[in-house]
Amino acid sequence: MPPRYRTIAESLRQALDSGALRPGDRVISARRLAEREGVSLPTAVEALRALEAEGLILARPRSGYFVCGSQTTAPDASRPPQAPQDITMAALARSIFSGSADNIIAPLGAALPDPDWLPVAALQRALNSAARRLGNGSQTYSPPPGRADLRRQIALRAADWGARFGPEDLIITAGETQAMRLALRATCRPGDVVAVESPTYFGVLLLLESLGLKALEIPTDPRDGLDVEFLAQAIARRRPAAVIASPTVQNPLGASLSLEAKRALVALLTRADIPLIEDDVYGDLGPGDPRPSACKAFDEAGIVIHCSSLSKTLAPGWRIGWIAAGRYHAEVLKARLEESLAGPPLLEAALAEFLAGGDYDRHLRRFRPKIQAGVRAVASRAEAQFPQGARISRPTAGFLLWVELPAHIDALEIHRRALAEGISVSPGQLFSPQSSFSHHLRLNCANEPTPRLLRAIDRLGEICAKA
Amino acid sequence: MPPRYRTIAESLRQALDSGALRPGDRVISARRLAEREGVSLPTAVEALRALEAEGLILARPRSGYFVCGSQTTAPDASRPPQAPQDITMAALARSIFSGSADNIIAPLGAALPDPDWLPVAALQRALNSAARRLGNGSQTYSPPPGRADLRRQIALRAADWGARFGPEDLIITAGETQAMRLALRATCRPGDVVAVESPTYFGVLLLLESLGLKALEIPTDPRDGLDVEFLAQAIARRRPAAVIASPTVQNPLGASLSLEAKRALVALLTRADIPLIEDDVYGDLGPGDPRPSACKAFDEAGIVIHCSSLSKTLAPGWRIGWIAAGRYHAEVLKARLEESLAGPPLLEAALAEFLAGGDYDRHLRRFRPKIQAGVRAVASRAEAQFPQGARISRPTAGFLLWVELPAHIDALEIHRRALAEGISVSPGQLFSPQSSFSHHLRLNCANEPTPRLLRAIDRLGEICAKA
Repeated sequence: MPPRYRTIAESLRQALDSGALRPGDRVISARRLAEREGVSLPTAVEALRALEAEGLILARPRSGYFVCGSQTTAPDASRPPQAPQDITMAALARSIFSGSADNIIAPLGAALPDPDWLPVAALQRALNSAARRLGNGSQTYSPPPGRADLRRQIALRAADWGARFGPEDLIITAGETQAMRLALRATCRPGDVVAVESPTYFGVLLLLESLGLKALEIPTDPRDGLDVEFLAQAIARRRPAAVIASPTVQNPLGASLSLEAKRALVALLTRADIPLIEDDVYGDLGPGDPRPSACKAFDEAGIVIHCSSLSKTLAPGWRIGWIAAGRYHAEVLKARLEESLAGPPLLEAALAEFLAGGDYDRHLRRFRPKIQAGVRAVASRAEAQFPQGARISRPTAGFLLWVELPAHIDALEIHRRALAEGISVSPGQLFSPQSSFSHHLRLNCANEPTPRLLRAIDRLGEICAKA
Repeated sequence: MPPRYRTIAESLRQALDSGALRPGDRVISARRLAEREGVSLPTAVEALRALEAEGLILARPRSGYFVCGSQTTAPDASRPPQAPQDITMAALARSIFSGSADNIIAPLGAALPDPDWLPVAALQRALNSAARRLGNGSQTYSPPPGRADLRRQIALRAADWGARFGPEDLIITAGETQAMRLALRATCRPGDVVAVESPTYFGVLLLLESLGLKALEIPTDPRDGLDVEFLAQAIARRRPAAVIASPTVQNPLGASLSLEAKRALVALLTRADIPLIEDDVYGDLGPGDPRPSACKAFDEAGIVIHCSSLSKTLAPGWRIGWIAAGRYHAEVLKARLEESLAGPPLLEAALAEFLAGGDYDRHLRRFRPKIQAGVRAVASRAEAQFPQGARISRPTAGFLLWVELPAHIDALEIHRRALAEGISVSPGQLFSPQSSFSHHLRLNCANEPTPRLLRAIDRLGEICAKA
């Protein structure tokens, strides 16, 4: 049951939404609200402050609370519909993240775990403890390379899979997106070619576009991952400035390279003297337990730039990533300073404390079976309900499904129609610069497979069948 | 008095530092520690976990705690001294931020307020309240443009000085550095010329360098700010792609344009159709109370890109900034998605809650006299102790002093020698791409003017006199 102040705030919010109160109207005072609802004055104050924090009401000194701005008067219809030319990759990607919006009943779009599956309370305890420990030090900068305690914990964990880096080789970043961006900036110049997996994570394509880089797509198998032999031939034909790949639990396929293939990939790129930007954000999910080594474990020359974060497995809301940049360390450190100046010391310290406590492994032991069950549930439902000819990936790890629909189906259209019904999916067009996957969908399965979610899969199948 | 677990942790830390315990040694168990110190078991556990969070000791399942890595054996001397060619602007800028390090007795380098002058406890209460309110929602993404409650609060405050933007025109960023970076990306292409103040904030120069942009320096007066007439002539000669400036409380000079000059600047750039990237991060500090309007108040054409944060006045550790990009809104929104994907919802919600509570204005009323006293104390001490011929700025607002030393003095050398004695200063070389200010220093005065700090000013004067 939600706390009392929340239910009171909710009823006030409904009064605002209903139009009973108009902008500029005075809101009930805390004292009268407390009387009306039969609660303590602090509870009534907390309810009003919750609405104020949402920007719905506003306190005027010595006058009480008033209804804000034009929140309740502007009709929704006044916003013009998105014109077709606005559906760029970035606009499309942004619409995927609307999965957190209230009107979404099935968040299958963004690759984000259900927050109910994360140890939010334990993370909050670590945050509170770090706040006590840091005291006023929480309100200063954490300049690059970031706090030593966090870098130490990351290095200790990575040592378990044979990482060749220590705390001094790590730089903390604002999420893994920034880590990959810094890696590209350190290794490429505008106009350069970068080899990418096909399909690849759309964040990579957005980064390439923003840095003026060209993508060279390398075939990637739903079971075996990146085709290393094809990459070798491609390099011989047209030398890329860098290779960016997820050798462990690829997004969107869920594929992983074998250890031999990882060794071969690192050997190939070491010989060619081409940096490998390794996206390891899903690495802790397997395949297998303990997790397999990342490519960085085989990197003797310092050409592997290892990038990761805990956004897919622990704490998406804290936006902390890291990079072990090998021989590109100095350039990345410089670029991190230019882009961010500093990071948030409190969140860095809290994450260090959480990792030091050993709770992350305990969480992973609970989290893995949940995502496996989520993937199984969505996959079998989709197999039963999607149109004849649909092919669904069978990933060995991670929580993403890749669905190939009959070739005549436009995934963008499916995305649009599903979103209108509160079902968010990622259309295949996002995963290649060539729109090679125009009849593919990526489905996020890190959600409790509730009846409502499974009905949404059924509905998605119907939408596909009618397309 | 610090809590008991901290004093116990401190004594253990000393044992580690002394070399009494070596890497790999088993550390005293929590039970024995509790007995030895006469404290409860939870207190002993907390002491050990504090050391673990620092990376000094490590728990092994069912075996207890052990001393970590090579922490205590590697001699400091093994790190090679920085070769002269490494003193790039970025490396130099990074050394300024070492002001937070333990060996710094006088943090005059980075432009950061003393955290003891910030309402850290109240901010922490807002954070805790936001955590309760968001619940598990704190561990998801806050996709661009960022939380509506925070955008609303920012817009409400900005309305007080006549800002021409609402919540829907704002985009939350990872600090103001990212905001300015996104503004430059939205308005310039590599090779373009950007007009900057002279001297200018070094973060601007780092951004220009990283984006391949050229700086066109515009004379800026320590009292009156940017020379708008000179800018008009410069534009006629060589049209810049953008102008980036701090019209209110300039860094490092502390100068502000008059309202008439702000109007003239916006009119000039509107006629020329050149965007103004307005850095308003010190704007809440004056001059005057209430603060003067920013240029954005006079922007009818949408050419002013307003960038700010609360890093200089409230919450440097939260790393939250914002941008109101006028007609460049769509490009900035796209660039924000590419660079960060999302922000930290908990910190955004906490800041919204703090601002909604009205505590920021109360804090500013206490903060302003403190920084004014800090500036007066440092300025009069420096006037008494710095060598003959030194000229010290008399800023009307903000907490930075700009010192012009006799021309033969190399500020870089002063920076280096002072840092060796625990005194951090910003050498003038950082504030111009031409090293035009090689005999200037910027001093951060947002610190309690303790006897120790004032003695450091004396010492700085001696170092300058001997140079």
